[in-house]
Amino acid sequence: MKARVYIMPKEGILDPQGLTVGKALHNLGISQIASVHMGKYVEITLPDITPERAREVTAEACDRLLVNPNIETYRFDILEEEK
Amino acid sequence: MKARVYIMPKEGILDPQGLTVGKALHNLGISQIASVHMGKYVEITLPDITPERAREVTAEACDRLLVNPNIETYRFDILEEEK
Repeated sequence: MKARVYIMPKEGILDPQGLTVGKALHNLGISQIASVHMGKYVEITLPDITPERAREVTAEACDRLLVNPNIETYRFDILEEEK
Repeated sequence: MKARVYIMPKEGILDPQGLTVGKALHNLGISQIASVHMGKYVEITLPDITPERAREVTAEACDRLLVNPNIETYRFDILEEEK
């Protein structure tokens, strides 16, 4: 079983990496881009546990380590089939 | 329109950040985690263009700036409705 976690800067929090990448893309001539936001993507492989337990473990990992709740938000999906 | 890009270290490429996070989770007592892989998540906001054009622009941004093809792979989704 896998969890896919997406962590993004909160709305209104400065995202200097996203601004820089957006400018760099414009400088490359890729102008059809309105804005860029950079976040983190975490793939967690879980043993053979129930989806409910997988959700609990993933939320605990986010709350206790992966995510800074002051400046970041997260969401995650649980994939039952490992791919 | 939005593009959501997921960038991961290639299979077989050392992922020291993922290893470190996996160990830190075990040290916190969150032991039901087999492995962790850390990647990047990029949200690109695109103007009102066709989905085909959005795919082209996003692939160009990945190939020319965002992704190091030697050590990273990527995939992306195009979301027609901005949310």
